[in-house]
Amino acid sequence: MSATPTYDELSSTWTRLHRLSHLQSIAGWDQASNMPPKGNEARAAAMAEMAALLHRMRTEPKLKDQLSRAEQEPLSDAQRANLREMRRQWRGSNALPESLVTRQQMANSRCEHAWRTQRPANDWAGFVENFREVLACGREEARLLSEQTGLSKYDAMMDRFEPGMTSAQVDRVFGEVRQWLPGLIRDVTAKQARDAVIEPVGPFPTAQQRALCEKVIGLLGFDFQAGRLDVSTHPFCGGVPEDVRMTTRFNESEFLISLMGTVHETGHGRYEQNLPRELLGQPVADARSMALHESQSLSFEMQLGSHPGFVKLIAPLVSDAFGHQPAFEPDNLLKLMTRVKPGFIRVDADEVTYPAHIILRYEIERPLIEGEIEPEDIPALWDAKMQELLGVDTRGNFRNGPLQDVHWPEALFGYFPCYSLGAMYAAQWFATMRRQMPDLDARIGAGDLAPVFDWLRGNIWTQGSRWTTDELALRASGEVLNPAHFQAHLRARYLG
Amino acid sequence: MSATPTYDELSSTWTRLHRLSHLQSIAGWDQASNMPPKGNEARAAAMAEMAALLHRMRTEPKLKDQLSRAEQEPLSDAQRANLREMRRQWRGSNALPESLVTRQQMANSRCEHAWRTQRPANDWAGFVENFREVLACGREEARLLSEQTGLSKYDAMMDRFEPGMTSAQVDRVFGEVRQWLPGLIRDVTAKQARDAVIEPVGPFPTAQQRALCEKVIGLLGFDFQAGRLDVSTHPFCGGVPEDVRMTTRFNESEFLISLMGTVHETGHGRYEQNLPRELLGQPVADARSMALHESQSLSFEMQLGSHPGFVKLIAPLVSDAFGHQPAFEPDNLLKLMTRVKPGFIRVDADEVTYPAHIILRYEIERPLIEGEIEPEDIPALWDAKMQELLGVDTRGNFRNGPLQDVHWPEALFGYFPCYSLGAMYAAQWFATMRRQMPDLDARIGAGDLAPVFDWLRGNIWTQGSRWTTDELALRASGEVLNPAHFQAHLRARYLG
Repeated sequence: MSATPTYDELSSTWTRLHRLSHLQSIAGWDQASNMPPKGNEARAAAMAEMAALLHRMRTEPKLKDQLSRAEQEPLSDAQRANLREMRRQWRGSNALPESLVTRQQMANSRCEHAWRTQRPANDWAGFVENFREVLACGREEARLLSEQTGLSKYDAMMDRFEPGMTSAQVDRVFGEVRQWLPGLIRDVTAKQARDAVIEPVGPFPTAQQRALCEKVIGLLGFDFQAGRLDVSTHPFCGGVPEDVRMTTRFNESEFLISLMGTVHETGHGRYEQNLPRELLGQPVADARSMALHESQSLSFEMQLGSHPGFVKLIAPLVSDAFGHQPAFEPDNLLKLMTRVKPGFIRVDADEVTYPAHIILRYEIERPLIEGEIEPEDIPALWDAKMQELLGVDTRGNFRNGPLQDVHWPEALFGYFPCYSLGAMYAAQWFATMRRQMPDLDARIGAGDLAPVFDWLRGNIWTQGSRWTTDELALRASGEVLNPAHFQAHLRARYLG
Repeated sequence: MSATPTYDELSSTWTRLHRLSHLQSIAGWDQASNMPPKGNEARAAAMAEMAALLHRMRTEPKLKDQLSRAEQEPLSDAQRANLREMRRQWRGSNALPESLVTRQQMANSRCEHAWRTQRPANDWAGFVENFREVLACGREEARLLSEQTGLSKYDAMMDRFEPGMTSAQVDRVFGEVRQWLPGLIRDVTAKQARDAVIEPVGPFPTAQQRALCEKVIGLLGFDFQAGRLDVSTHPFCGGVPEDVRMTTRFNESEFLISLMGTVHETGHGRYEQNLPRELLGQPVADARSMALHESQSLSFEMQLGSHPGFVKLIAPLVSDAFGHQPAFEPDNLLKLMTRVKPGFIRVDADEVTYPAHIILRYEIERPLIEGEIEPEDIPALWDAKMQELLGVDTRGNFRNGPLQDVHWPEALFGYFPCYSLGAMYAAQWFATMRRQMPDLDARIGAGDLAPVFDWLRGNIWTQGSRWTTDELALRASGEVLNPAHFQAHLRARYLG
């Protein structure tokens, strides 16, 4: 008999959860990329049934006792890490009373549904009416999670996406960025104003764009034997680690957004494809966190994707796809890919102005959850911060202001910081690589991307959730999150 | 409170089964049409987990008592029909001890896996080694089902696919066909030998074939808002009634196989799309049986698909797709679609020789299951019957003889008759339509297919499993299965 019978039972439970969630993931991918419209009602009912089933499995009363008993068993370090993650997931699933979950689902779904038309109608007042209940549920959730974890309310919310991250740390990191970002943006835009950039001339047929994306994904080492690229309205990376489903969308008048979006998803995809295979299904084999995931997509899209060596590598493929034009010269492509321009919309933002959008959201949603401000206060705060951070005037422009993202209507409070934390981790990984491999840029310049992939595979991908994020960062780079690398990266790339 | 509380509980259970099976169906479709090879292991594990879960739900001990109690409740006729079908499904799921199910799964899987290489290697002796255990399990299953149902062993097996059908009826029907079929085949091939047929000249590019198939499916009334057409190695119609997933495959040197295969699947697809919507999920809303399903695909592929009026309708679409050539004249297309030629392979057989393949399999698998013959006896019986029914010599040619189909390695004993019963029902439906609508052929000739769809929708599709098959046939056509209509159809079309 096993010396760890209870741990083994838990492990089987998680394997079962993994297998059933597999079907849910594939159905979700299919819903976004294949499903005809009349299939939606039955699909939603099927996925809700499965969600309820998975929730019942994750909240089975016996788990509480099993988790405690397993902690007394003679576990290896890896098993102990797995048990830690099991407990974390279990706590998340059991934190909320079903009445709150139901109330929350109804509030979010009503708010999100109305938001779809309120946003184009610029209807802030209408939005706030529904959002009040979303926020009330969110605050109640934060209160319960805070009691359970001993964290502050907002930190308890953020912990769902970024375990171990605290607003003290975010304050410190974002506080630093706040110091130098507006000045940097001014310097970069002034410098780029002197640059001549040649615009590519379309159309760029979908079939050629698709073939180009697939070639570039191949260069980036995505395993097409264990994943696919398809089309959906909102690009994402889904599926399961054993069968990764990335999506993109094509617009025939433009090709760079889809190409670089695909490069972004490939970073997510390779992380998933290279999680510790023999442990898949166990929480210890999951990707570490949202910021870590984003650090991979941004390592691909930003660190590598706008590297002159990478651009030199893909420029001929772009010419092959659409026929050569002067805009496709590597120098010009690089300029197109690194243009900086303050704007209203987060998802359209460049690498330099992006953190401003995140800092603004963080500085609003944290006090919102803590109960320090109310929804009525958002527009004035939004306008002031946009002016201060990006120098743009958003007054009255709700649709391109606080109504632009789905996160708040869907109550994803605590998620936004992960985007910029991910960008910072990505810069930190590349700084470490350069320190450890002084010829890194020369090798990328010569078209050799293997050193990057090898480093990420060894230090991030195959580590799964073996360590806390801080431990992982320490082991990989010798320090916990340090935003200085991000600043250095931006200065070197945009002002160097 | 409801007057039928137990019935309502059962009804909820089946709704839950329907929803979870939805995910299993979509995952199965995805496996065949999208999944990259390295995804297979995880997918198989996920689907096996779900199959086990569904089996546990279908064999929950309380169902037995609930079914009995519900029978005492004041049910409507439709509810009573639903309860009858619930009991039928429940009996099927609970018939076999788990030990037999496991033993059977292993035997079938080993036999089917080895068969994939034994067939090309013409290795009958090797096949029989594995097949012996498949048959042993099949006979044990037949014995248990026979005890439970009071049917003969083979009838109990057939009842899983074609409820209510007996070998006494099949003997009568196939016995009649046996009388006139060999002579008819001789007459038709002699007549057609005098015909000049122009062969189409390829290649036929995949993109054009696909567009042509979609146009034809549209003509046939398939709702693309509630279904799709994709590509898989083995064409099928899957998905769920609310979102039907048909597949085909394309070969650029030939277009008719794919086109008519798609017409065939569209018959299955429209049946599924038009099952009684408000009852979906309840057994009474399921398609009636395998033969009834096949009667729909063959109504589309054979009755309608080779109708001169339909061929006239699609001939210009064929010319649009590939550029006009003399082979695409309606008269010639019709000849191409109705050529009769005895051959080795069932799935390649035309409408006239097809029943010979089925009769042969039935005359072998029935005594095999009843224990009257052994696997060693198959080749000699096969050779004799092929000679007798189709005049072809199959001696030593196992790969194109008894090794050609996956049904026996997978233990699908009792399934084969459904194909030809379906062809006979289809002929019976069209004979009824012609009786009720004397202008039917004129209307089809004028490109108006609505009368056919309206009749099938009203008499077959929307009836689901409301009636037994015999009752359904009686209500629709005034008589139970009558093979005379099939004979008349073949004589009219091929010798008329």
